[in-house]
Amino acid sequence: MRVAVVGVGLIGGSIGLAARQRLEARVTGYDHDPGVLAQAAEKGAIDAAGADVAEAVTGAELAFVAVPVGALPATVEQVLAAAPADCAVTDVGSTKRPVRAAALDERFIGGHPLAGAETSGVMNARADLFEGATWYLTPGERASGVLYERLHRVLAALGARPAAIDSETHDRVMASVSHLPHVIANVLVGQAAGTLSEGGERMPATGPSFRDATRVAGANGAVWTDIYLSNRDALAAEIEETIRRLGAVRQALASADAGAIERWNDTAGEHRQALLEVGLAGGPVRELRVFVPNRPGVIAEIALALGRAGVNVVDMALSPADDFSRGVVALWVRGDSDAARAQELIAALDFPVLPA
Amino acid sequence: MRVAVVGVGLIGGSIGLAARQRLEARVTGYDHDPGVLAQAAEKGAIDAAGADVAEAVTGAELAFVAVPVGALPATVEQVLAAAPADCAVTDVGSTKRPVRAAALDERFIGGHPLAGAETSGVMNARADLFEGATWYLTPGERASGVLYERLHRVLAALGARPAAIDSETHDRVMASVSHLPHVIANVLVGQAAGTLSEGGERMPATGPSFRDATRVAGANGAVWTDIYLSNRDALAAEIEETIRRLGAVRQALASADAGAIERWNDTAGEHRQALLEVGLAGGPVRELRVFVPNRPGVIAEIALALGRAGVNVVDMALSPADDFSRGVVALWVRGDSDAARAQELIAALDFPVLPA
Repeated sequence: MRVAVVGVGLIGGSIGLAARQRLEARVTGYDHDPGVLAQAAEKGAIDAAGADVAEAVTGAELAFVAVPVGALPATVEQVLAAAPADCAVTDVGSTKRPVRAAALDERFIGGHPLAGAETSGVMNARADLFEGATWYLTPGERASGVLYERLHRVLAALGARPAAIDSETHDRVMASVSHLPHVIANVLVGQAAGTLSEGGERMPATGPSFRDATRVAGANGAVWTDIYLSNRDALAAEIEETIRRLGAVRQALASADAGAIERWNDTAGEHRQALLEVGLAGGPVRELRVFVPNRPGVIAEIALALGRAGVNVVDMALSPADDFSRGVVALWVRGDSDAARAQELIAALDFPVLPA
Repeated sequence: MRVAVVGVGLIGGSIGLAARQRLEARVTGYDHDPGVLAQAAEKGAIDAAGADVAEAVTGAELAFVAVPVGALPATVEQVLAAAPADCAVTDVGSTKRPVRAAALDERFIGGHPLAGAETSGVMNARADLFEGATWYLTPGERASGVLYERLHRVLAALGARPAAIDSETHDRVMASVSHLPHVIANVLVGQAAGTLSEGGERMPATGPSFRDATRVAGANGAVWTDIYLSNRDALAAEIEETIRRLGAVRQALASADAGAIERWNDTAGEHRQALLEVGLAGGPVRELRVFVPNRPGVIAEIALALGRAGVNVVDMALSPADDFSRGVVALWVRGDSDAARAQELIAALDFPVLPA
């Protein structure tokens, strides 16, 4: 497997390390910063450095674009222009609508691994960075099934759990579960500093709840400014909703309604429990075989339907018929309940499906 | 040392265990739930169980009231009515204004250890629960110096870092660094659940930022309803301020002002750094000797001045003159810079002070 990585920071470098160590892939890298590129080579994250984007992606079967969100659309376009006709191209950006246009090309499938927020730089790259991490994929309507399968299998081999989702939902969900918590962490530390300076006190020791709630405050400014701006409509809507909900809490406090406050608090506990239990489906892995016509978008359609229902596809394998007119996709899903749900969802898409 | 603990749950039980193991204290306990009282005895958190509050505090030199915030004012009153004339009485409530009235009695000094939010119940009690934890003390104007010193030394022996603060500031600071983060965690999980159910999706895997930010969501409902209500004015003011700050972020997003967003984010990083560095004053312990008149409130006045400036008093010892008309307080403070600051602050209160 020949892999190209454009942008070899923490994420790109970790992809390179993992692909080399776990897939024995040959990895070619490029970075606009020659110093970073040299560090990546020294660290063993790449086998060879390309002189430019085009050289890096020459002959690649899979190309990762791992540059900051602000530079993504232009870099993805460059990579698609230079990459071979049968090369899968993906990115790792935290917001997915900015690269939606690239999905007009059937080689492109957007991606976003939920990993690596705490540190940055290729020197912190690790081959196990993606172990157990959800890796969102946002295939467009024209996405090639063969290339989707290739990308899915490589990500699973890197230790990740690929999950398909459409770009709009991805950005809305990330606004709620990632960008909003970052905004709030920033607000909380600023507010605590303000509360304390009013009274002329030094900041007091804070308890564990404050430290946890503000762990991500002031995260890498260049990276996060891009993320906030690229998702600003969805994020603004989430902020608006937080303001509304805080107003309701203030109202309950003003009326000193103990029953309402306790119910609100208990409901939060239930929501948290439900969040913690996500992705814990257990049981043996079940195989499903799906018969599909050979046209772009079919695999993406199936993956999105399963992703929407929270069914985790542990692995997949596509076997085309000799004349390429149709094929069989094998899907592996954990547990009888997820397997039954998957079978139902795929049947609803009108593809014949059988347990293996 | 004879110690009484009224309310032997997680905090009261841990005080009992630590006092017995570290001070060889004889601990008498009381709990309105006989089953809990029996568990405390079985666990070794108390030497003897009192039949009622009065029996538990008979002969005590130090009494801790560790009942829920809602029951504190009445229980503190009961304890003060029954406790000996030379017994220090304190509580462990998360808000301090509800027990302010008790400080008319010079034996009472309010307290609040920042420890133990994650679990509850005497079965989770641990002798090391307070190791390294800040333990706020809110002495009133009439607080006895002898009893303040006794309480301070016992808390330091339990492994805690006592810090004096006035009740109003305490409740305002806690609203900002503890109660508000709890409210926001509850809001975030409810909002994420809402965002996801709109689209009919199952909850997706969430990243570490969301898990950290919502760790305390739905914390023990009975305990927290009391806390929210007992501090509702200060908490409402903090919520109001959060709403204002979130509105400003939304505004910056609407105008897509990258420079403003990056500066805001970087400032948050600096605030977080400053918060993390609190309480890390290093260096050798320095002793100061302060000459004080023997009247109630003097030690509290000094402790509050140092607490306000963030100077941590590692230990203290009070030596009255033979005729009790005046005394010398030895204070131990870590590092030359804190020692110099302490000397300055005490001199400003017009008490003679010397480095030992």
